[in-house]
Amino acid sequence: MTSGARYRDGLREDVLAANLGLVRQNLVTLTWGNASGIDRDAGVIAIKASGVDYATMDVDDIVILTLDGEIVEGDRKPSTDMPTHLELYRSFSEIGGVIHTHSTWATSWAQAELEIPILGTTHADFCPGPIPLSRHLSAEEIATSYELNTGIALRELIAENGVEDLPAALVPGHGPFVWGKDPNDALERATTLEAVAQMALLSVALRPGIPPLESAIVDRHFRRKHGPDAYYGQAD
Amino acid sequence: MTSGARYRDGLREDVLAANLGLVRQNLVTLTWGNASGIDRDAGVIAIKASGVDYATMDVDDIVILTLDGEIVEGDRKPSTDMPTHLELYRSFSEIGGVIHTHSTWATSWAQAELEIPILGTTHADFCPGPIPLSRHLSAEEIATSYELNTGIALRELIAENGVEDLPAALVPGHGPFVWGKDPNDALERATTLEAVAQMALLSVALRPGIPPLESAIVDRHFRRKHGPDAYYGQAD
Amino acid sequence: MTSGARYRDGLREDVLAANLGLVRQNLVTLTWGNASGIDRDAGVIAIKASGVDYATMDVDDIVILTLDGEIVEGDRKPSTDMPTHLELYRSFSEIGGVIHTHSTWATSWAQAELEIPILGTTHADFCPGPIPLSRHLSAEEIATSYELNTGIALRELIAENGVEDLPAALVPGHGPFVWGKDPNDALERATTLEAVAQMALLSVALRPGIPPLESAIVDRHFRRKHGPDAYYGQAD
Amino acid sequence: MTSGARYRDGLREDVLAANLGLVRQNLVTLTWGNASGIDRDAGVIAIKASGVDYATMDVDDIVILTLDGEIVEGDRKPSTDMPTHLELYRSFSEIGGVIHTHSTWATSWAQAELEIPILGTTHADFCPGPIPLSRHLSAEEIATSYELNTGIALRELIAENGVEDLPAALVPGHGPFVWGKDPNDALERATTLEAVAQMALLSVALRPGIPPLESAIVDRHFRRKHGPDAYYGQAD
Repeated sequence: MTSGARYRDGLREDVLAANLGLVRQNLVTLTWGNASGIDRDAGVIAIKASGVDYATMDVDDIVILTLDGEIVEGDRKPSTDMPTHLELYRSFSEIGGVIHTHSTWATSWAQAELEIPILGTTHADFCPGPIPLSRHLSAEEIATSYELNTGIALRELIAENGVEDLPAALVPGHGPFVWGKDPNDALERATTLEAVAQMALLSVALRPGIPPLESAIVDRHFRRKHGPDAYYGQAD
Repeated sequence: MTSGARYRDGLREDVLAANLGLVRQNLVTLTWGNASGIDRDAGVIAIKASGVDYATMDVDDIVILTLDGEIVEGDRKPSTDMPTHLELYRSFSEIGGVIHTHSTWATSWAQAELEIPILGTTHADFCPGPIPLSRHLSAEEIATSYELNTGIALRELIAENGVEDLPAALVPGHGPFVWGKDPNDALERATTLEAVAQMALLSVALRPGIPPLESAIVDRHFRRKHGPDAYYGQAD
Repeated sequence: MTSGARYRDGLREDVLAANLGLVRQNLVTLTWGNASGIDRDAGVIAIKASGVDYATMDVDDIVILTLDGEIVEGDRKPSTDMPTHLELYRSFSEIGGVIHTHSTWATSWAQAELEIPILGTTHADFCPGPIPLSRHLSAEEIATSYELNTGIALRELIAENGVEDLPAALVPGHGPFVWGKDPNDALERATTLEAVAQMALLSVALRPGIPPLESAIVDRHFRRKHGPDAYYGQAD
Repeated sequence: MTSGARYRDGLREDVLAANLGLVRQNLVTLTWGNASGIDRDAGVIAIKASGVDYATMDVDDIVILTLDGEIVEGDRKPSTDMPTHLELYRSFSEIGGVIHTHSTWATSWAQAELEIPILGTTHADFCPGPIPLSRHLSAEEIATSYELNTGIALRELIAENGVEDLPAALVPGHGPFVWGKDPNDALERATTLEAVAQMALLSVALRPGIPPLESAIVDRHFRRKHGPDAYYGQAD
């Protein structure tokens, strides 16, 4: 591309910061996990390159691509999960950042192929229902465009729940995907998901068959942080 | 307020230190959790602002309020849990610091809606009985002054147990509240509660139905650290 | 005492180092836990003062006492567990360092009142049998010289097993006591015990009723590290 | 040996780095664990000395030996597990680095004497089947060349599975052995094994009897990272 690339200053830096944040929040081992962000005006995304070392990662390890997956800038191959990220950006204009990890506790739920039940206000502050599993892919879907089909299954699940009510999902036997308004928001949500997953697992270990949090508390907490009546935090 | 605010030097600094201590003791994720302290002579409390980042937190993020919740000093909104803190300060003159967290192990007990049984001397050094759950709130109590009503339920529980024998409680489906003679004392107690909660969960996993610690040991340990016959630590 | 105190240079420093090592090895929370060491020629022990902060601990927080518990040097009160340490030093000339902690995993076994079964070579490298529980104290023993009686119960257990075969024991409902040839050896053993306790708990969670390690492997590993045929490590 | 030792520059440094990497990845406690590497042209291996402290470890703690176990360079005794490493290097020309640890989660599976089932894509990215246990040694094999016989049992298991499909195995009641194309590759695999072991244990705790990952996903993920059709990471 020409040096006059038209995407906003700071896009690659923000995506780099979210990727490095995965390490700081103990959400990645080795080179696993990837964060991306979008500039909707420019129609491009920025995403981590495949298999690069977090310890030496810099902006040159962040690749710029069109929404069709054409590389616009960067000498490195993008994350193999790039087609999953792109499907989410193409499908939901509300999504400005996407993260995939193999974080320990959320992945343990994904491997057990169990949705994460809503057991407390930490979860209700995050979303108003269980963290669901996306559907199984067919043999055909696995054999052909596997990563794109993973994105399609996630898109179906988000459409069903409403993007405003679903910040994350578990791909069965794989691990979590998380999205937000920008890469940093996705990072905070990935961090929250892992904490919610850990506490849900420990609560279930203490008391198998524990009922979900009562809906009056769920509603109160979700509305305390989200939507027109939110009163948590400072005004932006 | 005027610059001649009449509260003791160091109140905001002590409350800031207790909030930062929550991070050091691994009791908080992201912006969750809040610590406060009181100056009873001045009739004001200091509490963390809502949703602020621990990494950059300074005294400007500590808000001063009257016991009725009127802001006396500070440009930021206080923690949403402020009415819970205030109810505890108004009800018990022995309380000089209050902390609320979503710490992993204590919150897992709160989500399982189980009191933490007294299984060892670490717990007996802390308090002479199980860590109880406060009662469920009614739909009405949740819909109206939710945070105040949380404080009222805690106040009832403390009154029942005696403030000298109850340093902490679990709000069901939510997480722990902890109090002490000052913010740092509350921090030490929040740290102790989390260790007690973790070891109780692991002990119960090893041996479901384990009986509580025998009362002769409970009494010996609680009196070793508390009350007129205490002989642990250095004389103040 | 006179300034010509006759105990070896470095005794207090070694005991301080072992106490600080407890923090580095994640074996203590707040002020819990204590390490001591002995100078048998001088007939004195050095032990941590009671309830002091590890972050600011220095040699002035290490108290020197006779084997009868008379303070020889130091302005602070010794650890409340001092009488337990003294009973072990008086009873076994092989013991040169003693440590008590409330470390998470070992304490969870102590609270469950279960001995730690020998399930692997990590444990067999450490000792040739389960980590046992000391006996319960009588109401009389708890009410009177509680800490001394804890030491007497440990002494009986060590005498039964042989001090060369028993590096540690669990006080039921309380936590681990560990001893070694000097304070640093006791620290390494306290670290090993915690790792052994964690892996035993996880192994039992995976497979309840798991049989102990076969005795041929236990013998091989214990003799690989201990006794006349040991071949692990460098010659001293 | 003469100062003209004919092994490649950097062999000892690479082996030192892999040993220190075990600490950084939280795979070792105290002096446990050892990493080695080979120079096949020179016919020598480099391995950690026995029982040395990781905090002060340097290249002088890395011993050079022939494939028959003769010391070529170094003043220290090699790791007691050296005969196990040598048997793997002698048996498989593909192996360029070997690591043994007592890492917490993998060792817990080894102690439970259960193979690690393949429950997710993190595992499928690593190897296409369960992580197996090597066979039990006979009393005769334990009493005589114990460490060599451990290597022979691992060699039989690798031969059965194919070295390209088996990066690691569990010695029952002991812990994991891991191999790779060089010491750093073995370190990455030891790190992966520990993460896989932890998530498998947590998944099984959540849902006992959980079925293995479907084979279509296993194949897709293993081939995404390994073999002629691999497309993960950057071209070497």
